[in-house]
Amino acid sequence: MTLDVIKYAVRTMARWESDAEGRLIKAAISLYDKQGFQETTVAQIADAAGLTKRTFFRYFADKREVLFSGSHELQDRWIAGISAAAAAASPMEAVLAGLDAVADLFADRLPFAAVRSRIVAANPELQERELIKLQNLAAAIEAALHQRGVPDNAAALAAQAGIAVFHVGFGRWVSQRDPAAFRPLMADSLAELKSVVG
Amino acid sequence: MTLDVIKYAVRTMARWESDAEGRLIKAAISLYDKQGFQETTVAQIADAAGLTKRTFFRYFADKREVLFSGSHELQDRWIAGISAAAAAASPMEAVLAGLDAVADLFADRLPFAAVRSRIVAANPELQERELIKLQNLAAAIEAALHQRGVPDNAAALAAQAGIAVFHVGFGRWVSQRDPAAFRPLMADSLAELKSVVG
Repeated sequence: MTLDVIKYAVRTMARWESDAEGRLIKAAISLYDKQGFQETTVAQIADAAGLTKRTFFRYFADKREVLFSGSHELQDRWIAGISAAAAAASPMEAVLAGLDAVADLFADRLPFAAVRSRIVAANPELQERELIKLQNLAAAIEAALHQRGVPDNAAALAAQAGIAVFHVGFGRWVSQRDPAAFRPLMADSLAELKSVVG
Repeated sequence: MTLDVIKYAVRTMARWESDAEGRLIKAAISLYDKQGFQETTVAQIADAAGLTKRTFFRYFADKREVLFSGSHELQDRWIAGISAAAAAASPMEAVLAGLDAVADLFADRLPFAAVRSRIVAANPELQERELIKLQNLAAAIEAALHQRGVPDNAAALAAQAGIAVFHVGFGRWVSQRDPAAFRPLMADSLAELKSVVG
């Protein structure tokens, strides 16, 4: 094989793989929503996606992780947004630059995000997992602020404030129907935090 | 037996029981700190406290819960403080009244809290548990604010702001030696949140 053929094979495989992952996520979400998270097995998910259990476990550690596969991308974008913020930006401005960088990720995911939120809200184990992922995100934001030279306490508080704005804004976004409302709802949430903290 | 004798027996038993709980907590903390949380068994804790495993399980579901036995008292005090706040208090003022009500709980617990923090920081499973307990506290604060008529988003954001102030202030308190610094450090943490959020 020439190098070009190998490159082509790798690209095609990558495309097929990402499609398999997408099909598994879609099948899982649909089954969790219809019959409940507890009641759904990995075998059922793989079957509904036309794949094997073995393929499922190449992408996800367990059936819970299917619901959190987007958290790495969310975190990567948020951190990249912080790093790209102007050197003169305040800690909170940097955090909000990260949140703004995240907005596009959700542009075409409102129907998915709404069903996912409903599934998580119905299950205490998933709610706990969601909180831990959010706090991992807060820790990553805090570390990114440290890297910009922000002192310990300011970094911790700006990170927590950013997560609170995101958490409340996101909850409102998934409970309405306009995908483009992401940024305005985050702005509302920030304004409310400012007003509350005084 | 006369009623007085029964009352005396109940009081004495209650005192003995609360002492058993205290001895178990003391023994557990000391063993976790010395030999590690993972390495310590319930049998070792009971033995070090001069009690049986059976007694241990009357107080704690597992060895992890020993470290979180204070979280109910913390939550009860915080919520009572919110309920007792003046009707005219803003959501954040009510949250801070709750935090102030919590301060006395920690007045004589700094050495314990410092060792406990060290144990939790050394173990990811305990860190997760700590985050979940904090978020349960946030949910309880949010519910208490709802009861005061605070709207959804303001209640959620004030609760998260209060938890962030507590979390950062508490981290500083356990890393220094003056028990009386609790309130001033919380005030510093609040001032920093205000400055960060702007």
